[in-house]
Amino acid sequence: MTAQANRSVEERMRAIEDRLEIYNIIASHPPSADTGGSEHISAGWVEDGVFDRGEDPTRGRAAIAEQVLSPGHQAAIAGGLAHFTGLPHVAISGDTAVVTSYLQIVVPQTQGDAVEVPNHGSSKGFRVHRMTANRWELVRTPQGWKIKRRTLRQLDGSEPARKILRQAIAR
Amino acid sequence: MTAQANRSVEERMRAIEDRLEIYNIIASHPPSADTGGSEHISAGWVEDGVFDRGEDPTRGRAAIAEQVLSPGHQAAIAGGLAHFTGLPHVAISGDTAVVTSYLQIVVPQTQGDAVEVPNHGSSKGFRVHRMTANRWELVRTPQGWKIKRRTLRQLDGSEPARKILRQAIAR
Amino acid sequence: MTAQANRSVEERMRAIEDRLEIYNIIASHPPSADTGGSEHISAGWVEDGVFDRGEDPTRGRAAIAEQVLSPGHQAAIAGGLAHFTGLPHVAISGDTAVVTSYLQIVVPQTQGDAVEVPNHGSSKGFRVHRMTANRWELVRTPQGWKIKRRTLRQLDGSEPARKILRQAIAR
Repeated sequence: MTAQANRSVEERMRAIEDRLEIYNIIASHPPSADTGGSEHISAGWVEDGVFDRGEDPTRGRAAIAEQVLSPGHQAAIAGGLAHFTGLPHVAISGDTAVVTSYLQIVVPQTQGDAVEVPNHGSSKGFRVHRMTANRWELVRTPQGWKIKRRTLRQLDGSEPARKILRQAIAR
Repeated sequence: MTAQANRSVEERMRAIEDRLEIYNIIASHPPSADTGGSEHISAGWVEDGVFDRGEDPTRGRAAIAEQVLSPGHQAAIAGGLAHFTGLPHVAISGDTAVVTSYLQIVVPQTQGDAVEVPNHGSSKGFRVHRMTANRWELVRTPQGWKIKRRTLRQLDGSEPARKILRQAIAR
Repeated sequence: MTAQANRSVEERMRAIEDRLEIYNIIASHPPSADTGGSEHISAGWVEDGVFDRGEDPTRGRAAIAEQVLSPGHQAAIAGGLAHFTGLPHVAISGDTAVVTSYLQIVVPQTQGDAVEVPNHGSSKGFRVHRMTANRWELVRTPQGWKIKRRTLRQLDGSEPARKILRQAIAR
């Protein structure tokens, strides 16, 4: 966002609209994952997109979209699956963009006693099942920004997640 | 954000400013709920706004704003109430907008042992008391965007929360 | 974002770009804290910046940046430290800005049994170690927006955190 003096209003406006479009892409991931929205997911990726969760990446938007229809994923949804994303970091460079985001997977507690919070009901609470670092590589297409590659790593103290985060702040 | 060629700079700029104004509305909800900021809440709604939490919706901005002044809500605040919102999905269409957001209610743990994290103190930790899906329907007014209806449902595996999320990604 | 009629396209565009630049500053904090990115942190502050965590504030960007290199902080990173920030509230006024944000510190659970979530692996889960309110005071510089003061308080029911939140919604 520096050296704006050299950029036309059109260029600056487009950079802003790109950013806001990408925010909505990231914000629409949890609703699609938590409802099994395979059509939405499919439409959000380029055809040869790769979803890399650490081993044996899923290749192709069809395969990526189908994951949320699996019996296991449907069971997770029935149990109260919630993806919860914070404010992502977005770096756009021409027709490509890199988003770095933290993402929780939250599920209802099934054990333990319910606790009452005044005016906010009684609940056994929810557990943060996973805490991950995500790197989303996007490309501009005639149909808008699409995901080309998503890399997800567990934030458990191991190096791969730190590598994703480090890339976000590399100068 | 497509078909931008047909839109004037003024129209595009307004769409961007709408989006940013709405982000701040959503971001100001937790500070108002967690401090009992009834004046702020009242100013954020249209007069006949409806807050629907599943049964017996609260009707009218006066009633909605008064909720945070109740003894129960004040007790929750004194106990360490924290609303924590992720990145919301925002869809604007002319003078109306729909925001879909995930929201945690987080409170201090009162049971169990404290755990020490090096350089980050000792704490019993915090519990996620609630995890909800929220649909905010907003309207443009001469005084800015105002909330007309908020629908909140527990993300506990039941259908109503999924319905809210599904609407966000409907094509 | 009101009274736009009196503002030039250039002024409005700059306000938008300021906002987006500030979002990325806030979003880059967790990756820097969780990887010990002292250079990134140093570059984000004005030289005489102050980080106030409640007692004995850290003064100067060199001292602030060095904190993440301490043995204690490095041990926390090795244990799986994750800063998780929600959608911040941003108020810009000319060449200064105030950001109010909620921030979780999340770490892996080391006790208890692992729980399996279908299709989402097995884990002991993560604990929310801290839940804080943050006030970031920023200033515009020739090198972009920089942090001048950050005030962080525990959201444990005590007054100082509420004061930070109340300032965000003051009219």
